[in-house]
Formats: sequence, structure tokens, C-alpha cells
Amino acid sequence: MEPVGVLGRLAEWMEEAAVDAALVTHPVSVAYLTGFRAEPHERLMALVVRPDRALLVVPWLEEEAACAAARGVEVRAWRDGEDPWAVVGAALGRPRRLGVEKAHLTISAWERLQESVQEGEPVDVGAEIRRLRARKTPEEIARLERAARITDEVTERALRGLEPGRTELEVAAALDLAVAAGGAVTSFATLVQSGENTARPHQPPGDRRLRPGDLVLVDFGAAWEGYRADTTRTVVLGEPDARQRELHGLVLEAHDAGIAAVRAGVTAGEVDEAARSVLRDAGLGERFIHRLGHGLGLEPHEAPSLDPGGGTVLEAGMVITIEPGVYIPGWGGIRIEDDVVVEPNGCRVLTRAGRGLRPDAP
Amino acid sequence: MEPVGVLGRLAEWMEEAAVDAALVTHPVSVAYLTGFRAEPHERLMALVVRPDRALLVVPWLEEEAACAAARGVEVRAWRDGEDPWAVVGAALGRPRRLGVEKAHLTISAWERLQESVQEGEPVDVGAEIRRLRARKTPEEIARLERAARITDEVTERALRGLEPGRTELEVAAALDLAVAAGGAVTSFATLVQSGENTARPHQPPGDRRLRPGDLVLVDFGAAWEGYRADTTRTVVLGEPDARQRELHGLVLEAHDAGIAAVRAGVTAGEVDEAARSVLRDAGLGERFIHRLGHGLGLEPHEAPSLDPGGGTVLEAGMVITIEPGVYIPGWGGIRIEDDVVVEPNGCRVLTRAGRGLRPDAP
Repeated sequence: MEPVGVLGRLAEWMEEAAVDAALVTHPVSVAYLTGFRAEPHERLMALVVRPDRALLVVPWLEEEAACAAARGVEVRAWRDGEDPWAVVGAALGRPRRLGVEKAHLTISAWERLQESVQEGEPVDVGAEIRRLRARKTPEEIARLERAARITDEVTERALRGLEPGRTELEVAAALDLAVAAGGAVTSFATLVQSGENTARPHQPPGDRRLRPGDLVLVDFGAAWEGYRADTTRTVVLGEPDARQRELHGLVLEAHDAGIAAVRAGVTAGEVDEAARSVLRDAGLGERFIHRLGHGLGLEPHEAPSLDPGGGTVLEAGMVITIEPGVYIPGWGGIRIEDDVVVEPNGCRVLTRAGRGLRPDAP
Repeated sequence: MEPVGVLGRLAEWMEEAAVDAALVTHPVSVAYLTGFRAEPHERLMALVVRPDRALLVVPWLEEEAACAAARGVEVRAWRDGEDPWAVVGAALGRPRRLGVEKAHLTISAWERLQESVQEGEPVDVGAEIRRLRARKTPEEIARLERAARITDEVTERALRGLEPGRTELEVAAALDLAVAAGGAVTSFATLVQSGENTARPHQPPGDRRLRPGDLVLVDFGAAWEGYRADTTRTVVLGEPDARQRELHGLVLEAHDAGIAAVRAGVTAGEVDEAARSVLRDAGLGERFIHRLGHGLGLEPHEAPSLDPGGGTVLEAGMVITIEPGVYIPGWGGIRIEDDVVVEPNGCRVLTRAGRGLRPDAP
């Protein structure tokens, strides 16, 4: 993908913070800073940023792709059997103050680096990268919009096509196939839950077959050029009963209230509370067992986190999910999730598939 | 899934190593030690092991599933907005010697733990867990066998069904659907490459359409109860040409040689060399650009690593891949990969789909 032009902004920060070399090891940060997206698994990939140069160290298997994708950085590939930490150490050049991603670099890696750095504590360059990543550039928002558009199309078609007898796994695989047919990839492992399984927000799809009257919850997204949509819809297979209608209506009201509360300058906790209070007032406060939402972009979950009481101040350009839900063990759960861009005076909703309980009548 | 009874073995090791508390944070290690598989994403999940008790700290969303799955451990759930590190700190009880997973615990996490531990360097309990994990129990091998059986069925059906005009992404999605229909999940992101794309071993599937005469490479696997098969086949769409036949024959020979070299007591490097020398003798040494294989189990890549020159001694019960390949930029690549269990006097091949270049005539 095209880099979004943030390497220079990181270098400015390094100069201000008197950090003379930074080691970036989180593959998502590497993608963000260079445009090169890769999952090197257990092999080391690292970006060394110094005032005068940036060097991307990659496993040999990634060399061709790295050279083609990464802009404005040199690429140095290492082969299986070589010691990649020696390559990184040489590139670092014994900095006085080293920046690392403290929330990604492991103790083992830090021990491997000891020979290459001078004494002293490393500085956390990861916090700055997360701060930069949280406020999306227009190019990033355009990718998220495209991801949302594909997601919406898949959602509407998939929900209309739900039929009794199919398993959750089959529905999930069909969703993934539709995402692929749209030229995209899935943002994360697609969740499809049915019946009482919908009461467990993280339960992966299984071999339970859909039955008439079931709640069916679908939580998935398409990713475009690395940028991930994330949406949830809950529908009923057939005619909803009174309780399904009532709880769905309340979740919808909480969802609307959350979205209405989003604008630059409010805290994450204030937005969470706007949605949570709707459910609390209806006696369902204890049934809303997770935060209201999270940032998204190159990762399906990233900064900011919309926790109860969370103090993070929302800024224009942040992209977040709003996803209230209620979960009643033995009965089921209902969640509605959309992606929104924070704007100075409100927000813009990116995912726009119908939110109704009946997929044919949104 | 059922735990495989290794928590006691870890406790024995801790006693020998005078480690009075261990903090296990890698979700795969938690699954291995307790039977509870979860992907908590950015939320903290940690297993605290002490001589007298084991406590599993999980996000509230995972509480029900953790209580149902984890055996022989207490479960303590924390809610969004709470500080999970305070819970972990209390459970650790200020140990004199603390074991952590150095290759998983980040510097940030270690800093959060400082208040809860006494002075001194942590001990790496992760190395012991990896050592335990590398030698599979009979229960683990049974799961890998089941995963291999599903994988083989999907492979053979998928390769026979390849048709010109379909995109790589569509073929990959169809494979995933077939894995789901078999009641399993995919081991990792399915790779489908065609034509010259087969020269790039890690390139994800794209919108290139299959054409007659193409090499088509499929690298995927089914996972059963968390245990992951991993297999690669390369076929030709239609009638193979002379070069495709020649190179495929050499890779097949290298594959056979690698498998023939596997037995308890040899080093990883010796097995790598057995396969690599076949390709080197044919003038293709520089075209085999990766290690011969890797361990697999709860992770698609785990110990041991079969690197050139690698000194790890293979032990009975280890499960590894054997996957030689040749990659020629602009032309394409061929790789054949199977999963084998190391035995005292040889090995047993788990994945057994036909390895031929023509899917209809293996």
C-alpha cells in the first residue's frame, strides 16, 4: 500500500525527544510508517529509524515485496540461519537514547539488543506511534470508507440469505467468501453466533445449526489496503418475539445515543456513558458487559479505547466503533456496531447497513 | 478443549528451578496449560502459577468460557475499566524468584509488574513451556491426526475442482468454506498463489485469475481442537510442461529425502541438509530460500525450527513440517509440505494427500 507520509512526523518527534535512533518492531507500525505490510510470524522484521536514514530489516522471504512496497527506506534482508539481531544492532549504531515500542518489544528481544545499545532505559516510541495512528489522515479515512462499503454490501446480502439448517461455521465461511469476492480480506476472524450462543460475545462460530426464531449475530468486517471495517448486526430468523423486539429496540436506542455523543473534545467515558445510561435506565446495566467501543484502522482494535470512565479526549480524525450490547445467559444477546469518524462537531457513520431485527425489513 | 496434563510438569520444573511464582501471558501457553483457548486481543489474560494454586485472570467477556474450559485452576475475571495488573500483582504474592515468558512479555508489561515483584531479574519460564510443547503427548498427536485428515480431504477435493477464471481469493475462500464444512477452522490465513505469484512464498491471495498452464500453489491447513495441520501442494492447471515436471520432480525428491532423514537423535540441520543437498546438486541451492520446516501444534509455527545448520536435536513426539521449495522470479515456484511425527527410528507422515503435479492423477 502507499505509505501515508508519517515517517517524517516520527523523525520530528525523535528530534524533539532527543531520541537518536528508534527500533520499530510491531509489523503494524512498520506498515504504517513504510507502506510495507507483512506478517513475518516468528522471523524478525524491524525498522531502524535514524536522523539520516531509515533501514528496514526483513526476512529474506519478504525482500522482494519489501523493496516493491516500502518507500523512502533501505531494505536489508537476512536469511534463515543468520542472526537478524546482529543486523539490527549494526544499523542502530550505538545510540545514546534508543526509542523502542515498549508495548511490543519483548524482554527476550531487549536482552538480545543489550550489546548494541549504551546503558540506560529505552524511551517508548510506541506511544507516539499510537498517538499518530489514532488520528487518521484523509488517505486512511478513504481506505476505511472503502472497507465499510464492501462490508455493508456483504452484510445486507448475507443477512437476507440466512436460512434455518445452516451451521454458524457455514454462515461464517460464506461471509468470508463474499468478502473475498468483493476483492477484500476479512478484518479479523468472522463471528457468527446463533440462539443462546449470542449471549457470549467472543464465542467463535461452531456447528450449531440455525433454527427458526433464533437470534443470529454477525460480527465481521472487510479490510481494504490494510484498513479494517468492523460491524455487528443481530437479526431474528423469522418473526421476532416481544422480548427480542424490546431488547433490540433498547440496544438501538443506546447505539443512537452513543453516536449522538461523539464529537471532538468529549472524553471516551462520556460517549460510553451516553449509551450505557440508556441500558442502565432500562434495568440492563449489568447486561452490557463490555466497553462501548474501540479505535480501528490497521488493527481491528487500536487506540482510543471507549471504556467506562475513560479519560481519553476524542480528536477529529479518530475512527472508532460504537457497539452497545446486552447479553442474557441462556436466552441470547443483541449487539449493534458501526464505525464512525470523529469530526469537530459530531461524527460521520461509515458503516451503513440496515440495523433492523428483520433483515428483509430494515 | 481438554488440557493435556502439563501444569503439574511445569510446577515440578519451578520447584527444581526455585521459581516460586510464574506469570504465563502467552494465550497459547495458557491454552496448553489449562485447556482454555482464547484470543483476548489487547485485554490482559494471564495464568499465575504458584506451588499451592493456579489462578487464571481473564477479561470479564471470557469468564464463562474460562470457567467451563479451564481445569484445576481458579478463574478471576476483570471488567473493562478495572486494572488487571493489580489483580495479577495480588495473585503473584511478591515472589522471591518470578518466572515470566520472556519471549512474550513486553517491556511495558514488565514495567507494570515492577510494584508486584521483588528486585532481581526474572527467570524465563517460556523456554521450559516451549520445550514441553515441542514433544507432543498422545492426546495432542491424536488431534493433529484429525486435523491432518480433514486437511487431506479438503486438499484433494479442492485441487480437483480448480478451474481457469477463478481468482486466487475465490479459491482461498472456497478452501476455507470446505474446512468449515468439515467442522474445523483454518490453521492460518490460507495461501493460494498462481502463475508467477508462486515465486513469492508469503504472498497472500489476490485477484489474479487462474489460467490454463498455471502453476497453482495452495498452502493451508485445518485445525482441530486448536491443533493445526499445515500442508502445501503445487499443481498445474492442465498439462504440465517439461520445466514444471523437472522442477516438481526435484522438489519431490528433496521432500522424500527430508522425510527419510527424520528420526529422534538427528539435528534439525541434518534434516535440512538432506533435502537441501538434493536441490543444491541440481543447481537450485540458491532457489530454496527458506528453512526446511518448523514445529507445529497449537501454533502454526513453533519449536523446533529446521534451519540450515540448526543444532536442535529432534526428539520422539516432536511434530514438524518438511517443506522444500524452489522459487524462480518471473517463472514461479513449487513447494511440497507435509507434517510428520518424529519417532525413535524414523517418522510417521500425518498429511497424505497426493503430491502429484496433476491433481487428477496423483
